[in-house]
Amino acid sequence: MSLLTETVAAITSASIEAMTAAEERQSMLTKPRGSLGALEDLGTRLCGMYGECPPPMPEPVTIAVFAGDHGVHAQGVSPWPQEVTTQMVGNFLAGGAVINVFGRQVGAEVVVIDIGVAGDVPAAAGLIARKIAAGTADMTRGPAMTPAQVQAAIEVGIEVAKDCVAQGSRLLVTGDMGIANTTASAALISVFTGLDAAEVTGRGTGIDTPMLAHKVSVIETAIRINQLSPNSDPLAALAGVGGFEHAGVVGYLLAAAAQRTPVILDGVIACSAALVARAIAPDAADYWIAGHRSIEPGATAALAHLGLVPLVDLGMRLGEGSGAALAVPLVQASARILREVATFDAAGVSNKE
Amino acid sequence: MSLLTETVAAITSASIEAMTAAEERQSMLTKPRGSLGALEDLGTRLCGMYGECPPPMPEPVTIAVFAGDHGVHAQGVSPWPQEVTTQMVGNFLAGGAVINVFGRQVGAEVVVIDIGVAGDVPAAAGLIARKIAAGTADMTRGPAMTPAQVQAAIEVGIEVAKDCVAQGSRLLVTGDMGIANTTASAALISVFTGLDAAEVTGRGTGIDTPMLAHKVSVIETAIRINQLSPNSDPLAALAGVGGFEHAGVVGYLLAAAAQRTPVILDGVIACSAALVARAIAPDAADYWIAGHRSIEPGATAALAHLGLVPLVDLGMRLGEGSGAALAVPLVQASARILREVATFDAAGVSNKE
Repeated sequence: MSLLTETVAAITSASIEAMTAAEERQSMLTKPRGSLGALEDLGTRLCGMYGECPPPMPEPVTIAVFAGDHGVHAQGVSPWPQEVTTQMVGNFLAGGAVINVFGRQVGAEVVVIDIGVAGDVPAAAGLIARKIAAGTADMTRGPAMTPAQVQAAIEVGIEVAKDCVAQGSRLLVTGDMGIANTTASAALISVFTGLDAAEVTGRGTGIDTPMLAHKVSVIETAIRINQLSPNSDPLAALAGVGGFEHAGVVGYLLAAAAQRTPVILDGVIACSAALVARAIAPDAADYWIAGHRSIEPGATAALAHLGLVPLVDLGMRLGEGSGAALAVPLVQASARILREVATFDAAGVSNKE
Repeated sequence: MSLLTETVAAITSASIEAMTAAEERQSMLTKPRGSLGALEDLGTRLCGMYGECPPPMPEPVTIAVFAGDHGVHAQGVSPWPQEVTTQMVGNFLAGGAVINVFGRQVGAEVVVIDIGVAGDVPAAAGLIARKIAAGTADMTRGPAMTPAQVQAAIEVGIEVAKDCVAQGSRLLVTGDMGIANTTASAALISVFTGLDAAEVTGRGTGIDTPMLAHKVSVIETAIRINQLSPNSDPLAALAGVGGFEHAGVVGYLLAAAAQRTPVILDGVIACSAALVARAIAPDAADYWIAGHRSIEPGATAALAHLGLVPLVDLGMRLGEGSGAALAVPLVQASARILREVATFDAAGVSNKE
């Protein structure tokens, strides 16, 4: 049995018993019922994920940044040179990027996975060197990845999540880096939601209107060349128009679910990978939390498709895991409510008349 | 010169020079310009408040919870008995309320000010005992507070903010407790925005539709009896339909601005107090950050009037400072961006082509 098959087989849905207990507990705490809005629902969901009420504190936290390059960059879908992927990986490892800064803010460890960066990444603390290839092939000319590459990349993601949990992490966060990876994400979202490429394609890190129109046509070409539709096999769709970091995140999401560990999804890359992962294992979605609403239109389309409402909505579009990192204290707060707020009885507070 | 007059005289607008320097610095950091959305604008505003770029870290943080009771409670505007105010103050001082839990989550100290609680509050660590009276008078029969009481309550708020800053706080958060205080808040918001009471009155901690209609008519009566309009003197409006905790927050907001210290506004109570404080000293608003969007309609009306966009929007309506507390890590993240993210030059990352 492959590591992927084994992982999928281990996934079970969230615990109804623990969620029922959480609902009851919410109404005993010294606050008007429902007054904490989305955080009450999230706390209840956390109980379902961990299988206990109150839930454990969702810490320590690991942010895994999967980095890869994209053959489709040659089609002129980004104003940034491809070497920026390698350079930014260096920035992550030196601690100078936004995700490092936000990681320090929320007390999360950042690990970086070279799963398919085109350039050489020297060994460094915090680097997990698991390069499958020096970037994907150009999806407009055929599949971006071979079936064997997709399998290997998913298994990297599974192993990363397993290692995180084995080392004590109780909350995982998705991160990504890859110049042109919003192109692959929009293509996956178009395939899995059935929406037109034009509806789910955005300006990524900042492209102008002519380049956006070109990006849409590149995505349409890639989907056509790879003969993909909402009924395609999810692994074939991922191979056709995905990226190594997308495949890595797919494995990471599945393995987190198999270990009953919540994962906060970042923006459009994570959301596109979540569509793939849910198509492989529907119950896995019970363990995912939408960190933020990226301004990429594909992210909103994917979240709607996943039935997830994001915690943070600040008009961000950076990637790296930055939006999801900002949601960490909110997730922790939702657990703390159930763990630490006094009950009406214990605090001697009168309930509503 | 009174403490209020002196405080207002010390308020200056945010530093344009520091904000200009922040705008320049934002474009040099290793992220696409604008990709961090509202957090970039917030970081720039923080530089203007502190008068330096990069800004200091907004820490330590103090959450000041002003607690008072309301004579209008006798009109049946809340399903909660009035003694819950005193009981919840006890809960705050014992560390068991949501604001304590969120304070621990974000590393903030919680102080509680008895500025007008009806019941006796025994001395305790974290309590600032500055009771003006055992609750306000019933606003439907005349002013809720005398001019001398309003002045005294504002000065309590000023002294609390001055003490917080003197003890090292570099970020303040508003909090409140007072059964029936959404009635006073909606009345103030109706007066200052000129909107009908029905447009700005909500269900508070959870009232049914008949009680909501009654609450609106109580507010209409109070505004009429006190002869208030958008042209009223702000202190007269505050005395007429405000509460001790509202007056305390007014002083706290003004004194924070006078000391160039940012304050995060919580929900409808803080937003109504902010309307009063801005009418007294317009430049003070430069120092305020909208923490969250409460589901109380008055909060949204007041924020629009103040020109502030909230950071967190999770459908909350608890009060205590809970929504603002959740915004603390976001405010700190916005400062960290300017303090810690590497520049393109320093990190050796290529900029956009």
